[in-house]
Amino acid sequence: MKSRAAVAFAAGQPLEIVEVDVQGPKTGEVLVKIVATGVCHTDAYTLSGDDPEGLFPAILGHEGGGVVMEVGEGVTSVKPGDHVIPLYIPECGQCKFCSSGKTNLCQAIRVTQGKGLMPDGTSRFSYQGKQLFHYMGTSTFSEYTVLPEIALAKINPKAPLEKVCLLGCGVTTGIGAVLNTAKVEPGSTVAVFGLGGIGLSVIQGAAMANAGRIIAVDINSDKFEMAKALGATDCVNPKELSAPIQEALVEMTDGGVDYSFECVGNVQLMRAALESCHKGWGTSVIIGVAGAGQEISTRPFQLVTGRTWKGTAFGGVKGRSQLPGYVDKYLSGEIKVDPMVTYSLSLDDINKAFDYMHEGKSIRSVILF
Amino acid sequence: MKSRAAVAFAAGQPLEIVEVDVQGPKTGEVLVKIVATGVCHTDAYTLSGDDPEGLFPAILGHEGGGVVMEVGEGVTSVKPGDHVIPLYIPECGQCKFCSSGKTNLCQAIRVTQGKGLMPDGTSRFSYQGKQLFHYMGTSTFSEYTVLPEIALAKINPKAPLEKVCLLGCGVTTGIGAVLNTAKVEPGSTVAVFGLGGIGLSVIQGAAMANAGRIIAVDINSDKFEMAKALGATDCVNPKELSAPIQEALVEMTDGGVDYSFECVGNVQLMRAALESCHKGWGTSVIIGVAGAGQEISTRPFQLVTGRTWKGTAFGGVKGRSQLPGYVDKYLSGEIKVDPMVTYSLSLDDINKAFDYMHEGKSIRSVILF
Repeated sequence: MKSRAAVAFAAGQPLEIVEVDVQGPKTGEVLVKIVATGVCHTDAYTLSGDDPEGLFPAILGHEGGGVVMEVGEGVTSVKPGDHVIPLYIPECGQCKFCSSGKTNLCQAIRVTQGKGLMPDGTSRFSYQGKQLFHYMGTSTFSEYTVLPEIALAKINPKAPLEKVCLLGCGVTTGIGAVLNTAKVEPGSTVAVFGLGGIGLSVIQGAAMANAGRIIAVDINSDKFEMAKALGATDCVNPKELSAPIQEALVEMTDGGVDYSFECVGNVQLMRAALESCHKGWGTSVIIGVAGAGQEISTRPFQLVTGRTWKGTAFGGVKGRSQLPGYVDKYLSGEIKVDPMVTYSLSLDDINKAFDYMHEGKSIRSVILF
Repeated sequence: MKSRAAVAFAAGQPLEIVEVDVQGPKTGEVLVKIVATGVCHTDAYTLSGDDPEGLFPAILGHEGGGVVMEVGEGVTSVKPGDHVIPLYIPECGQCKFCSSGKTNLCQAIRVTQGKGLMPDGTSRFSYQGKQLFHYMGTSTFSEYTVLPEIALAKINPKAPLEKVCLLGCGVTTGIGAVLNTAKVEPGSTVAVFGLGGIGLSVIQGAAMANAGRIIAVDINSDKFEMAKALGATDCVNPKELSAPIQEALVEMTDGGVDYSFECVGNVQLMRAALESCHKGWGTSVIIGVAGAGQEISTRPFQLVTGRTWKGTAFGGVKGRSQLPGYVDKYLSGEIKVDPMVTYSLSLDDINKAFDYMHEGKSIRSVILF
């Protein structure tokens, strides 16, 4: 079938809106009509050419919401008409990782997904007869996309897809990092580095966890208003300090924060986030994705004196078992997504979404099909 | 009073056995007759001059066992005749750290301890009228030493002090790292880097935790016999491998170990230990003390994909509340200390203990007063 899609033909170039060919779902696969998709920094990272694993030509996009159109042989958990959120981390429920009870990092289809292909090693997308790569197993920048059944979370159909699509990446990642990865306790002191969509979601996660103090850190003070609206109790701009940010935080919290979250992808900031933690028990969680080849470092004394350094992907959230609950929390008002949507754009304007992101004008732009 | 002691007059020089003057205990202090003391790598590190916080002249030693001789005003928890193990990490039970329930790093007397002084800011040691510094708050290389009450664990008097003195540092650190810091679950796969006194104690801790597989790693294969005797199931010599040790361990464990422990103080090995861990849940614990100014590093991707990097001091063990239980476990045969004592020497021969250590001939030498 034909599908309108924004295709990344080459690194560093604008997406092109064209009509691509989409093959129907094979065994275990599902055809989804995407209703809306967020444009996330990871899409921009890959499009820039800096992502060493980026493949072109490809259909990017991984923060979508859609409706099941057709299911392949053997698919039992979703049916046409179901509302779904595509999962770039699937949940097969059977692999060593899913069975461990310790991680959400299902590895069932990791190898083919990393190659931009469906689990059978082929692509469902082509343009003028030439194969296009899938991206993160989701490719939500296409009106129609095909996903493995294990990469779909079936959600409450009452939820507006043009909002809850953001639960497919940023918002869930931030909230999950607090609730699943760090397991912040009530009364804790939390520092959040970087106030983009993920950082703001960490703030609301910390508020959900009843943290006692939530310190928002960003070099752009314009972001503090939204941070406060979502629950930040203090806002700090490192540019306005004479001391390094970690020293300032240790000072203002009588020894350091209980939990810190790096939401930027800057390795120096990851170090600062760790070193902002309280001796004896502080835990720092890396969420941001650093550039290729970059490394984190610190003195081992930081760890020997009781700090813990962790990371998280998709907030440790298991997509099929936990994400539907996040959607329900959105519907009940406990999780806020609407304030994150700065712009709603048509697919034709998708390159504007990247511009707004680079200009720091948007938290998220959502593309409506 | 007079006391025979091994004094470190200057960095890089042998200890000198002399008769020093020891003042009696002040308020909250206790005079202890040291019966035996281990000689640990940390003593050697400070004596070498590489320790930036090392102070001279000082009385080193921090792995001792002794008998209370006299108590100062206000001391209620010990009395003359009690058997005790000096604690370089005290336990006041009241500071923010002790009250947290999250760490053993009591900070009640940290500042003065770091300055080589008693909590009132003075020293109890002098030689020919000149002040000598205390070391790690313990100074067990003296027949008589003075400690704050909060830095003494009262232990079962049936335990032989010339053995359980090693519970004052190395053995407890290793076992505690497994049981308190990592909380290794039954059936886990564990890798131990470095088979000195601490690494061997990690092995027995892992055995106590019923780990399913315990992989001992050292560049000296002579150490494997003892490792196996204490519970190691596999032994690996990185020098005999063509691949880096982390790749070899990931290969032989189908994805990596559940827990790894660095027991050397080598920052490259700390990285290897982390990178030997299983994606999704592996936890690496740093126990070794790195040289001044050295840093650990890795790609943040290691953490984002679910590994955790931690550290531990004294195995996370609270000295006064938990160490007496370790001594009881020694008496019941559950904790083995005797195999760690390679040499028993008189105080006059204490420099031989350092030689044996540097020559790799000993796990621990114990000095008998």
